[in-house]
Amino acid sequence: MKMVDRLIESIIRRKNPTVVGLDPDIGKIPACYKDASQNEDPRAAVAEVITVFNRDVIDTIFDLVPAVKPQMAFYEKYGSHGVAAFEKTVAYAKAKGLVVIEDAKRNDIGNTAKAYADGHLGMVELLDGTKSPSVDADFLTVTPFLGSESLSPFVETCVKYDKGVFVLVKTSNPASGEIQDVVTPGGKTISQMIAAYVAEQAEACVGKWGYSPIGAVVGATYPGEAAELRRLMPRSYFLVPGYGAQGGGARDILPCFREDGLGAVVNSSRGILYTHMNDRERTICTRQEYLAGVKAATKEMQKDIYAALKGEYPKMVY
Amino acid sequence: MKMVDRLIESIIRRKNPTVVGLDPDIGKIPACYKDASQNEDPRAAVAEVITVFNRDVIDTIFDLVPAVKPQMAFYEKYGSHGVAAFEKTVAYAKAKGLVVIEDAKRNDIGNTAKAYADGHLGMVELLDGTKSPSVDADFLTVTPFLGSESLSPFVETCVKYDKGVFVLVKTSNPASGEIQDVVTPGGKTISQMIAAYVAEQAEACVGKWGYSPIGAVVGATYPGEAAELRRLMPRSYFLVPGYGAQGGGARDILPCFREDGLGAVVNSSRGILYTHMNDRERTICTRQEYLAGVKAATKEMQKDIYAALKGEYPKMVY
Repeated sequence: MKMVDRLIESIIRRKNPTVVGLDPDIGKIPACYKDASQNEDPRAAVAEVITVFNRDVIDTIFDLVPAVKPQMAFYEKYGSHGVAAFEKTVAYAKAKGLVVIEDAKRNDIGNTAKAYADGHLGMVELLDGTKSPSVDADFLTVTPFLGSESLSPFVETCVKYDKGVFVLVKTSNPASGEIQDVVTPGGKTISQMIAAYVAEQAEACVGKWGYSPIGAVVGATYPGEAAELRRLMPRSYFLVPGYGAQGGGARDILPCFREDGLGAVVNSSRGILYTHMNDRERTICTRQEYLAGVKAATKEMQKDIYAALKGEYPKMVY
Repeated sequence: MKMVDRLIESIIRRKNPTVVGLDPDIGKIPACYKDASQNEDPRAAVAEVITVFNRDVIDTIFDLVPAVKPQMAFYEKYGSHGVAAFEKTVAYAKAKGLVVIEDAKRNDIGNTAKAYADGHLGMVELLDGTKSPSVDADFLTVTPFLGSESLSPFVETCVKYDKGVFVLVKTSNPASGEIQDVVTPGGKTISQMIAAYVAEQAEACVGKWGYSPIGAVVGATYPGEAAELRRLMPRSYFLVPGYGAQGGGARDILPCFREDGLGAVVNSSRGILYTHMNDRERTICTRQEYLAGVKAATKEMQKDIYAALKGEYPKMVY
């Protein structure tokens, strides 16, 4: 089965189009995880704690959500040790049946873009001339600032290896409009121009549910823009950040979906992992107690989004 | 001495504003390096070959150029092993007195952008609450697609830790204009709008030669645009890709400089490392022979650029 169809069927089975963002922040990970490593190298010790923390979170939520979205910045800040923790997390999540969306916002030009595509989604050359998967995520977020030419190596890799990309089209942050909302000579915004490119490329790999893994990042914080982008990219899956901690509510994500209740996954990171930080009067004492909070927040998010979807799209397929 | 002044004084001492791009490509590294590792893990074996290859290149060129520019894509494609090779290369180059420009074109929003800035340029939090440098490059390339808000954590990190950034302003590739040349309501192109932001931030950390390490990537392939961008960012250092293999000549890079012969570093990667690929009739048999070619190409580039600069700016300071 195609990866995009596997994602969709997992969403349907769990009645849940939400994903958990794995953004490990050592300043917020509960104290009860800090003794998970005795490694003498201080960056390796952090990386080991992150690996154990992520495994526990994945064990807690793998049967509730279809996918996880590890944010590479929080791993690679610890150099090779952090990237090793990232790779272990990807492998563990995949072994648990989760789709892995690597949020790394990569891109460059020509053969450099190809190197990123090969490393994160495809295969890399070895000394003996053979090839091997490397990071091997299912999806990768990519940035379009260098133009369509920089995106094509990623699209080619997706087609070849049954992977996906989410191209940054309209991001969730307050300043996103500075570049993304500028109107081009054709009368479209930059976001809409990129959307047209994504929609065209998406046609190359549509799965049996009618969706393509050549997708787009569309922030929950701009629902008006999202409706137009949904129209422009009918077959592209959307990755929707900005729900929860960034201010987007359940109603704001609705324009990112289609009437079948498919077409988008909604991410929450801090709203799932760090709710214990809100409760300043209480100290988390055990991993069990912390993970119960993670599970409750994950279920709460599913309930919130699912109810909003059902209200808006009564004919949805799940 | 401030890092930007150290870069400038190294340029003056060597009469050389060119930098060598360390873009290791296992398909192009000479066969005589392929036996540099016996590691059983095939990705670790490639990473070890890259480390040895880079050390030899650095030993060959460290007294000829002021800086090296390792391109992260070619390392991280091999996952944590590749990033370990990257970190060893950074440390070795710095120990040899070179400034290190990490070309990784990173960015994200809010605390995620801060995580990239901390990891690549600043300090990261450890388990005991103390902080430590991590990748610790001197400069990092960053992408502005998410808006000025995404750039400010990098600027703050540069001011705090005496580091630099090169913000993508006008890239060297054929499709760069799709987004970068679009005209904003204020009548400026997107490139010029970003340039105005960079120029403003640059004022925060000007060194004794009058230049700031809050800089810009400006491609050698668009000399007309470059002249205007030079005017808009008088104090910012420029990183100029596109010379050599990408089609830019010595005359094309002149608008990126100021009359003092300073203000820009010009990169060549393939033109230095992989000239042996051009000579299909001859096989490189020894490392010595290969490195002699690297040295000759590095000197040739210096001669070419220096002559063009002297011709255009007779009053230059070196």
